Amino acid sequence: MKQSVVHKDITKIKGKTKREVGDVLAVEEPLEIRVGYGPENNREQKAIAVTMRTPGNDEELALGFLYSENVIQSKQDVLSIKPCINKESGEIEDNVLRVELSPDVKLNFQNLERNFYTTSSCGVCGKASIDSVDAVCVNRVSSQITVKTEVIYNLFGKLHEKQLNFSLTGGIHATAIFDTHGQIKTLREDVGRHNAFDKIVGFSLLNRTLPLQTTIALLSGRASFELLQKAAMAGVSIVCAIGAPSNLAVELAESFNITLIGFLKEDQFNIYSHPERII
Amino acid sequence: MKQSVVHKDITKIKGKTKREVGDVLAVEEPLEIRVGYGPENNREQKAIAVTMRTPGNDEELALGFLYSENVIQSKQDVLSIKPCINKESGEIEDNVLRVELSPDVKLNFQNLERNFYTTSSCGVCGKASIDSVDAVCVNRVSSQITVKTEVIYNLFGKLHEKQLNFSLTGGIHATAIFDTHGQIKTLREDVGRHNAFDKIVGFSLLNRTLPLQTTIALLSGRASFELLQKAAMAGVSIVCAIGAPSNLAVELAESFNITLIGFLKEDQFNIYSHPERII
Repeated sequence: MKQSVVHKDITKIKGKTKREVGDVLAVEEPLEIRVGYGPENNREQKAIAVTMRTPGNDEELALGFLYSENVIQSKQDVLSIKPCINKESGEIEDNVLRVELSPDVKLNFQNLERNFYTTSSCGVCGKASIDSVDAVCVNRVSSQITVKTEVIYNLFGKLHEKQLNFSLTGGIHATAIFDTHGQIKTLREDVGRHNAFDKIVGFSLLNRTLPLQTTIALLSGRASFELLQKAAMAGVSIVCAIGAPSNLAVELAESFNITLIGFLKEDQFNIYSHPERII
Repeated sequence: MKQSVVHKDITKIKGKTKREVGDVLAVEEPLEIRVGYGPENNREQKAIAVTMRTPGNDEELALGFLYSENVIQSKQDVLSIKPCINKESGEIEDNVLRVELSPDVKLNFQNLERNFYTTSSCGVCGKASIDSVDAVCVNRVSSQITVKTEVIYNLFGKLHEKQLNFSLTGGIHATAIFDTHGQIKTLREDVGRHNAFDKIVGFSLLNRTLPLQTTIALLSGRASFELLQKAAMAGVSIVCAIGAPSNLAVELAESFNITLIGFLKEDQFNIYSHPERII
């Protein structure tokens, strides 16, 4: 099992002083996610992503990624998840996960190609990006939940209290989910913001708690389009970010009936969409 | 020309008060980068990336991305950069840039595929990631430059002074380059950290100032593997980050003779690799 943090000796400069001290760094390693049919590595398969992630909860990450990308819709769609076995050494390679899909999942390997030759279409834009989520999103947020302002304020402290690897390294993102009373359900950390969210989605898929309609998701950083896309796919009703949202994140939240909060502090925050859920 | 920021009415909650106020958001829009031969859109070409970026300096972004990915090595490798023209409406589509390559650039469209069928290799890891940069990096950092501690301290204030869109939105990343006396050369902002760096590389390519051996690059956020990979490709000697580095970023900096500084504040910072350049 790979570590999430490592020790490293560094040089610390403060004012006019210089010291050699021990420090702790967040680990960043590539994870390749493959999908295929049949239990064996040498059957038809495809590497559909290589993401730079912090090791830990890798299966959740792979499942959450596939769910967010609309490759799988349920736990039943996956028959097994196994690391690659090196044929020469016989050793387990932790950085390659092969997801065996159920024969019921009709996967068009060609459609997974993001790169393409000689396209003539010319219409990539924010609107088209939102439409592409619209086309595949099955968990429409329809919840009427309301949450008290105090509950939102308290999330800020709870995140910092629970974020172990951030405390150690000062350099790792987190996504946490809470119920409407502000009780924390799960927290995942990763050097990649999107990976932390994917791990939460994978965890929820494994525990059959999707869609997350009655849930508040808290992001340690900014709220980008990509994170709101993942929230929409998972059916999250309220997304709170410590940082700023982009305009496209706000547009997506408005379209998908998601309450989006940004710049969350202990005693203030901004609401960018669907403020009716905050009372 | 697309805007980099937009106005939006939001709900501001502070203590027990609630107000409707005007706010400013960073714009996030997709940019598709195509490469091809010949001046026309309908010749053989390939969309090799869609990145979510803040509009502005898009040509620099496209060039910097292609340089970082080792598709082009010089300004001469590019004959033209043009937005897509919508055949039906005749309008310019700002979100698609087509880069016309010189016939001298031998591009293997197949090799640009990041996704692949039935691979049997099983060895993706941090070491392999660094080796892959090693295989293509032409700008080995060999500079003997030294920089005073005070110069490094002063970078912090200069970044915040110059970062216009961050001041407006509180939610946009920046990369800036400085000479060894701390004079700012260029600053670029973007919702994506890697895009801000690519814009700097593209700017430098256009101005024929690559490699950036006598340059300090300052990153507004954390230092990930991807950003150090771009720094290595551009031959930057000193990289300073306001946030934390990951372990793999540090390993890459060590291997490529780059001085990596993290947690930069007005009166302190950490040196993670090659401290000999800081005096």
